[in-house]
Amino acid sequence: MNMAPLRVELGDRSYDVRFYDGDVAAMARDVAVFCPERAFVITNPTIRALHGGAFMEALGAAGVDAVIAEMEDGERHKTLATVSSLLDRLIEGRFTRRTCVVAFGGGVVGDVAGFVAAVFLRGVDYVQVPTTVVAMVDSSVGGKTGVDHPLGKNLIGAFHQPRLVAVNLAYLRTLDDHNLRGGFAEVIKYGVIRDADLFRFLESSIERALALDAAALWRVVHDSCAIKARVVAADEREGGLRAILNYGHTFAHAIESVGAYRERQFHGQAVAIGMMAAGEVARRLGMFSADDLARQRRLIERAGLPTALPRGVTPEEILERIKSDKKVVAGRQRFVLPTGLGEVVVRDDVPVALVREVLTEMAS
Amino acid sequence: MNMAPLRVELGDRSYDVRFYDGDVAAMARDVAVFCPERAFVITNPTIRALHGGAFMEALGAAGVDAVIAEMEDGERHKTLATVSSLLDRLIEGRFTRRTCVVAFGGGVVGDVAGFVAAVFLRGVDYVQVPTTVVAMVDSSVGGKTGVDHPLGKNLIGAFHQPRLVAVNLAYLRTLDDHNLRGGFAEVIKYGVIRDADLFRFLESSIERALALDAAALWRVVHDSCAIKARVVAADEREGGLRAILNYGHTFAHAIESVGAYRERQFHGQAVAIGMMAAGEVARRLGMFSADDLARQRRLIERAGLPTALPRGVTPEEILERIKSDKKVVAGRQRFVLPTGLGEVVVRDDVPVALVREVLTEMAS
Repeated sequence: MNMAPLRVELGDRSYDVRFYDGDVAAMARDVAVFCPERAFVITNPTIRALHGGAFMEALGAAGVDAVIAEMEDGERHKTLATVSSLLDRLIEGRFTRRTCVVAFGGGVVGDVAGFVAAVFLRGVDYVQVPTTVVAMVDSSVGGKTGVDHPLGKNLIGAFHQPRLVAVNLAYLRTLDDHNLRGGFAEVIKYGVIRDADLFRFLESSIERALALDAAALWRVVHDSCAIKARVVAADEREGGLRAILNYGHTFAHAIESVGAYRERQFHGQAVAIGMMAAGEVARRLGMFSADDLARQRRLIERAGLPTALPRGVTPEEILERIKSDKKVVAGRQRFVLPTGLGEVVVRDDVPVALVREVLTEMAS
Repeated sequence: MNMAPLRVELGDRSYDVRFYDGDVAAMARDVAVFCPERAFVITNPTIRALHGGAFMEALGAAGVDAVIAEMEDGERHKTLATVSSLLDRLIEGRFTRRTCVVAFGGGVVGDVAGFVAAVFLRGVDYVQVPTTVVAMVDSSVGGKTGVDHPLGKNLIGAFHQPRLVAVNLAYLRTLDDHNLRGGFAEVIKYGVIRDADLFRFLESSIERALALDAAALWRVVHDSCAIKARVVAADEREGGLRAILNYGHTFAHAIESVGAYRERQFHGQAVAIGMMAAGEVARRLGMFSADDLARQRRLIERAGLPTALPRGVTPEEILERIKSDKKVVAGRQRFVLPTGLGEVVVRDDVPVALVREVLTEMAS
């Protein structure tokens, strides 16, 4: 395995995504480069219990004066109130502009910690140390930070790029099966939107990767991060290309917001369903072949992910939520639709009736 | 009066500062350019009562679909809680990414509204329509947004540049005398840090400007904005030059935070005292002549601003607060010190004992 870092090219906001398989000491030394003064490590109780001691010890050995702060786990704690209480701790602890915030956990921790770093003293540095597949391949790269609002996800936040993303595959060995599989929804997404090779590799090896075979895992995480890094470099603030990363996500956010899959641990599951919905819409529009759609379905099934709407969720609820999505532009909802395996387009002219039909067939 | 706009040059974040003397219709047409969809006008009860009707009517006539939202007036409402409740209104009102937030008020409204715009949907456009001298010459230009924390001012925020600053001198005609004079502390500051011509103009004409003589007022507001625009263009995120804008402010923030002058309406008064302290420190270090210090004092007195510490404030309290200032770098407090009228330097080697001496002599 060539564990060479990836570079996210963003001018004076460029940074590396670095990979490790264990070797927390080496990882901590890389993090230390961005901690000229004190570091403020934000994590959750689960990760702290599993890996907090070793990580803090390694930071100390690397010369970092670090303190650790916990936030509760789960999407329902991704709020302005959590951000406010973490800011209190930074301010009461007299942390300065040269503080480095370290996000040590999954996507919720990363989004919250990144936002804390974005607004503390009008912005301090931060480093992402993701511990889940979703955080590694998606949320830790790209600088999207923020919190949820009772009326929707990620409605409050900032673009704030990290100084480093330190991806340690060893953390996936303590990830529960459900979260691991959910993360593979994002990996499959990268294959469909941008990388036919990755898609074919998953077709040959997804079980090996899910079994945490080092080489297979490395390949899917690395290639996914590489796509994310290139897309973000081309379109930092989602003016254009970056929208393709939302493949399956318009439906997924709607599913999550009706409460069925509200917890982050179901995000990947919701994305899988969303990709099936988008794929079926594309097929009916004559853009995506039945064969390719079947290959997508098979891969999603092999990952142990759902392909139908959760029980009790009605198509009308989903349609209603889609209408209030923050990506609606001038009253038109944009959908990312596949035209082949490795290629998508963004369309804003999908008839609501067609979407309703597709969702109705997908209802459990 | 040549009311040509100033340009704040910041690459793809560049914007104009435009000037008006009355003519709300023309101003609203300029604001309308940045309101492709709905506008969300944030103001306070005082400004709303005085000018809200005319402004909203003018926006309507310019084709803008605008709603107005009030926040309470005063520094104590510049909090994350106020931001949160304004975000609730935006989200509940289903405002989109193409929303334009309009800050219509003084510095508190501008800072809060700018921060709301910075974090709503990870950043939407905003326009500043300042109604006080301080807001016109200082806080509305430069993209510093944010709120206070019980432990200090502006500890939570973001850099987020407006798309336009619309300075309408007519609003100063309803500003109370105390706030008007306070604003002139910032104007005098610009003279001392960067513009000997402006300083001399103030020496010849400060009473005319305070009496709202159109030509004199125009000159001081325009020239102050021009300095702010140039300094911000050279150093958007306060990596270097921008620090000179904090002349008098290290002391001022300390005075404000001990509670004596906590309300924003005393900010200018605190800055005046801070400039006297910094000037005296510079004189004792042999950097600043007694003559120039006397000229600064005379101008501050003619503006009706204080030159001694507020009653009951002790030098030790001020020193304690200065130590926790967010601009402390590596444990060293930096002070902006004048070397002449129109020139300052930043020093981080001022002995605490000297600062204590100066403050002790300035105690009431």
